[in-house]
Amino acid sequence: MTVLIGVDWGSTSLRAFAIAADGTAREIRRAEDGVFAGTGDYAGRLRAVLGDWLARWPDAPILLCGMIGSDRGWLHAPYVAAPAGADDIAAALLQVPFERPAFIVPGISFAEGDMREVMRGEETLLLALASNNPDAVVCLPGTHSKWARLQSGRISGFRTHMTGEIRATLLSQGALATGVAQEPSVDAFRAGLAASSQGVTRGLFQARARRLLGTLDARHTAAFVSGVLIGDEVSSAKLAGDLRAPIILAARGAVAVDYVEALAGTGISVIDPEPLAAQGLLLLARGAKLIAA
Amino acid sequence: MTVLIGVDWGSTSLRAFAIAADGTAREIRRAEDGVFAGTGDYAGRLRAVLGDWLARWPDAPILLCGMIGSDRGWLHAPYVAAPAGADDIAAALLQVPFERPAFIVPGISFAEGDMREVMRGEETLLLALASNNPDAVVCLPGTHSKWARLQSGRISGFRTHMTGEIRATLLSQGALATGVAQEPSVDAFRAGLAASSQGVTRGLFQARARRLLGTLDARHTAAFVSGVLIGDEVSSAKLAGDLRAPIILAARGAVAVDYVEALAGTGISVIDPEPLAAQGLLLLARGAKLIAA
Repeated sequence: MTVLIGVDWGSTSLRAFAIAADGTAREIRRAEDGVFAGTGDYAGRLRAVLGDWLARWPDAPILLCGMIGSDRGWLHAPYVAAPAGADDIAAALLQVPFERPAFIVPGISFAEGDMREVMRGEETLLLALASNNPDAVVCLPGTHSKWARLQSGRISGFRTHMTGEIRATLLSQGALATGVAQEPSVDAFRAGLAASSQGVTRGLFQARARRLLGTLDARHTAAFVSGVLIGDEVSSAKLAGDLRAPIILAARGAVAVDYVEALAGTGISVIDPEPLAAQGLLLLARGAKLIAA
Repeated sequence: MTVLIGVDWGSTSLRAFAIAADGTAREIRRAEDGVFAGTGDYAGRLRAVLGDWLARWPDAPILLCGMIGSDRGWLHAPYVAAPAGADDIAAALLQVPFERPAFIVPGISFAEGDMREVMRGEETLLLALASNNPDAVVCLPGTHSKWARLQSGRISGFRTHMTGEIRATLLSQGALATGVAQEPSVDAFRAGLAASSQGVTRGLFQARARRLLGTLDARHTAAFVSGVLIGDEVSSAKLAGDLRAPIILAARGAVAVDYVEALAGTGISVIDPEPLAAQGLLLLARGAKLIAA
């Protein structure tokens, strides 16, 4: 029985969840129709994606998270300032014009000295984690990796690293592009980790110099580059004192393997991030009393 | 009187110099015909660029430096291993098939532990500098910035930073692209320098987060990004012990301003890199006895 229709509507793609009362997604639909990909008719685009779901579950409210709430999205949902808990975010849901109750989850911002941070979408995943792990450090790798601190079930602060974007951008063009299919390599990844101690601007060029001089296989360029960038991310976490706390790594597949390697010697637990969006959306819908607790 | 025709033939552009016996370029021709830009007929391309110079100075040999000696260039001139002086490089010039004596200057490589370094073109500038400054640290900002050590007139080692390439690539697309014209800002540059101490992957995202949260003007994004990347470069130099030596900054214009700011408190002298290629080519031509000493 679907009690909530959840949508994680990001810049480049969308996932819709038919969420049951236990927080599991009984059905999932994916579309390439990202926030930045189409026209401004978000209501029409949402109807097209949800299709028969709307008739099947006429009473289920809709909750949307991600870039859909940015200033380039459906409606602009201003950031809630961290520290923030589920109650703060549930209280700031922003209703959009639709034929049934439909709300956008705002992102959160964080300030620490001159440093500034923003997230949209990850807060929903983090709140799902916080409901089971009220005090922890969470690493969410991605295009813009997030390291967040959970304290007493709230998101007390976080950092962002452009790791995934820098990696993809530099490997697709310029001096680091190879034109050959990439293969995983633990050795190349470790070499990249070690090189990152010399600085990122230097470490990245090593992927080219070592290839030219024969100490790096062209097929392992991406692995080396990942090592340099993730090494920098882990150094920042160390600087911030975040390698002492219990760390939850919310990642799967090859990405999880890389981070486990980079965090070797640190106490981490790895969890699959896939179910978190539906769980977090349910939690927020309950917090906002859109559905029964 | 032109005694040498010099060519700095890089990946994306070319400069040709009519070089007098005092090392000055009496005429300069520029072309967009970079090594990677055209067909493999390098002799024909060279004739097209030099044009009437060939008839005007029939006895001047030709010396070419830069990516023209790479494995994607005219002929592959293997790297000379640093430490290397003008004598080593002059002894390794590689003749190309042309109707008069024409040679390619090889690049140099350097190994230090696992770190590997390569340069093609900058060695010629560095040798010109070394003839007047036998013992110094030289910073050559660029797409791939070089920090080199000169000892007893030789290039004893160097580091490469992808500063310029990372900057241009990230500003042209993705989260850091602004779509607005950029303006210089010392304050934004300094803020970027400070943020780089938190790591490059984090520091770069600050350019987006601070813009979204109103502490960075979109027009100053490039200045902030420069600060983050150059800050990382300077940290590496510090780590390598290169901020203690007299530093020669071979840069001009806005780039020079940025590096002077980033190196504030360090003893540096700024020199214009523009005349160095011609001077270095003359020095190498003499060393190889292509022309009279």
